[in-house]
Amino acid sequence: MGDFNQSVVLEAIRQSGEGSSRIELAAATGLSAQTVTNITRRLLDEGLIREAGRTINGPGKPRVTLRLVADSRFAVGVHLDPAIMTFVLLDLSGAVVARTSVRTPAAEPRRIIQDMAATIDALITRSGIDRASIAGVGVAAPGPLDAEKGTVIDPPKLLGWNRVPLREVLAEATGLPVVLEKDTTAAAVGELWMRGASADDSFVFVYLGTGIGAALVRSGEAIPGSTGNIGEIGHLIVDPDGPPCACGSRGCVEVVCTPQAVVAQAEHAGVFRDDREVTDVEVVERRFTELCERAAGGDALAEGVLRQASVHMSVLTAALTNMLDVDRVVFGGPFWSRLAEVYLREIPGLLERASATRAVRPLPVDGTVVGDDVGAVGAGCVVLDSVLSPRASALLLDR
Amino acid sequence: MGDFNQSVVLEAIRQSGEGSSRIELAAATGLSAQTVTNITRRLLDEGLIREAGRTINGPGKPRVTLRLVADSRFAVGVHLDPAIMTFVLLDLSGAVVARTSVRTPAAEPRRIIQDMAATIDALITRSGIDRASIAGVGVAAPGPLDAEKGTVIDPPKLLGWNRVPLREVLAEATGLPVVLEKDTTAAAVGELWMRGASADDSFVFVYLGTGIGAALVRSGEAIPGSTGNIGEIGHLIVDPDGPPCACGSRGCVEVVCTPQAVVAQAEHAGVFRDDREVTDVEVVERRFTELCERAAGGDALAEGVLRQASVHMSVLTAALTNMLDVDRVVFGGPFWSRLAEVYLREIPGLLERASATRAVRPLPVDGTVVGDDVGAVGAGCVVLDSVLSPRASALLLDR
Repeated sequence: MGDFNQSVVLEAIRQSGEGSSRIELAAATGLSAQTVTNITRRLLDEGLIREAGRTINGPGKPRVTLRLVADSRFAVGVHLDPAIMTFVLLDLSGAVVARTSVRTPAAEPRRIIQDMAATIDALITRSGIDRASIAGVGVAAPGPLDAEKGTVIDPPKLLGWNRVPLREVLAEATGLPVVLEKDTTAAAVGELWMRGASADDSFVFVYLGTGIGAALVRSGEAIPGSTGNIGEIGHLIVDPDGPPCACGSRGCVEVVCTPQAVVAQAEHAGVFRDDREVTDVEVVERRFTELCERAAGGDALAEGVLRQASVHMSVLTAALTNMLDVDRVVFGGPFWSRLAEVYLREIPGLLERASATRAVRPLPVDGTVVGDDVGAVGAGCVVLDSVLSPRASALLLDR
Repeated sequence: MGDFNQSVVLEAIRQSGEGSSRIELAAATGLSAQTVTNITRRLLDEGLIREAGRTINGPGKPRVTLRLVADSRFAVGVHLDPAIMTFVLLDLSGAVVARTSVRTPAAEPRRIIQDMAATIDALITRSGIDRASIAGVGVAAPGPLDAEKGTVIDPPKLLGWNRVPLREVLAEATGLPVVLEKDTTAAAVGELWMRGASADDSFVFVYLGTGIGAALVRSGEAIPGSTGNIGEIGHLIVDPDGPPCACGSRGCVEVVCTPQAVVAQAEHAGVFRDDREVTDVEVVERRFTELCERAAGGDALAEGVLRQASVHMSVLTAALTNMLDVDRVVFGGPFWSRLAEVYLREIPGLLERASATRAVRPLPVDGTVVGDDVGAVGAGCVVLDSVLSPRASALLLDR
């Protein structure tokens, strides 16, 4: 239990922000004063925490404040999205000390991974930090993954990726340990880090990216699922009148709720002058932004499209909360900020009406606190978790 | 940790069936020989286990075999179904020592609970066991429930039940402690008991009753959800061409996959001579049985209806496994045995094709080992869990 207790103490120091005394740590963790003293000595030796002043409270010995040494360890987080690759460098407190993003090259996977390694190198060099202080690289990628082998199997939106051993190839190219995590679960881990997880926190994270996925948090921990592929919700049916889907069904999330689907709905509604259907990722992204801006600017047609989209999203959200019985819903992902205003206005009421537990409790709906980089930040937090909490690392690194 | 270790030892003895020696228990649980000796002394004192013979293995001291005293404690399990109430009396090994079932009276809820208490009394009296050896009564009821207050809120199929304090009223009427559990989760607990849970077992239990629900098992434990209402899947859309649903949508599980819906499909297909639509619960049940018998007897029309039903069920199952990332699917509930042959033939292949993780692992599909009484047996096992394992009891009794 030594490692586990150490992680509990380190996490308590991290969450305290301003620092904690040994007595406060004993009270917060339930550990004995002697255990806290032993653990904090180890952490001081390793340079993960430092003594930051003394407080005199009455006649006893002054209390020494212990604080995290944020720049003692770093982690790289990478989000591999079909359209864009985002890179962040996090310190041990979870703060972003450097970031960059590049368009995902239209190249074969191993070439992309080499580019990834080069960008990581440049990010580290530019930041001026010591390579030896980097705990590792976390990569958030679309599922399905083979978490055990560290391979990206065949995500529908990552063309040409087929059982690519991303973990191995990137570890070799960077010389750093690499963790592979599903983008949606990484985002939920980031959310937990930034909010400060509480042990009874339970929510479903709805990730709005090029594709739409979910992650599950229970008892303050992101649940990866048996194979690390939890939350594949692209083919839940949300609109019986929706368009046909490649899966053979109709009205799936994939063809109704994704940015591309919403842009198509806007095109059919005549929001854009040019009503030619677009599928190119960049054009979709641009039109999606335009749609959201027009809605925000009072364009009734654009607003109607987003309102309808929020109805579909509420069907998905209700399906998830009724199945999972969680306490709240958190939206996030790279497309979230543009949808936040309309979705947060429309979805709570619709969800309430469709909730099987409406007589037991309300179901708050919320947006991520992390912002558009939540996938990359979360991937970095997965690595920091392995430094801070051996338990989470057992779940996330060793499966 | 004393109570928890005690439960671990007791569970190891229970699962051993033929009994275990102290040395085998130490090996199986990882506890020290001294701890096992202390715990087994307590269990012997409480009469939960007994010494059952000695084995001589070589020159050392003979090993004493310790075995569960199955009739040292009992539990009552009740399944409150809209159509039928099932009652079982379980001994500490989980074996059914007495059972009975009665039609759920068309009466107001408090009257039904009094009837329930009378049937429980009669069951105990008839079995001749000492009332003092009964650990409690577990009741499996359709959701939504308010697990904290022990009330049945307003299950769509239990007419007139509206925030009925079942736990309190039944405890008063029987003089026994009462636990209230969602029927689907109770069934999964029963499944875990009867199979012998392993710590890495992970499955979704699809419960086929008057309504259809799901339960989730992860790491060998049934997950109740935040409010004890996990698995409300009645309004997942499985057939975009399906009939309208009271919820305002179309093609929900509720109007496509339930026994009543399948009987209606059979009526439209002309399976029955009399094509009048039925809704009465008893008639539906009879027609459902007839449909399944005809299909088994080679009636192509009846077989076609069940094949189509299995297609819809595979859509539901794929939605659940893709969302939850579990290792397998277990079907059960009172309607399962009649559907088992067709569903086990059709669903595995359909599910495989729709599985997001098909490239990572297969998804076995299985039927319950408990039989039609799984709800009642599971409710009894929830009570036995509270005797055997304080940890589960903390989850299930005190929330």
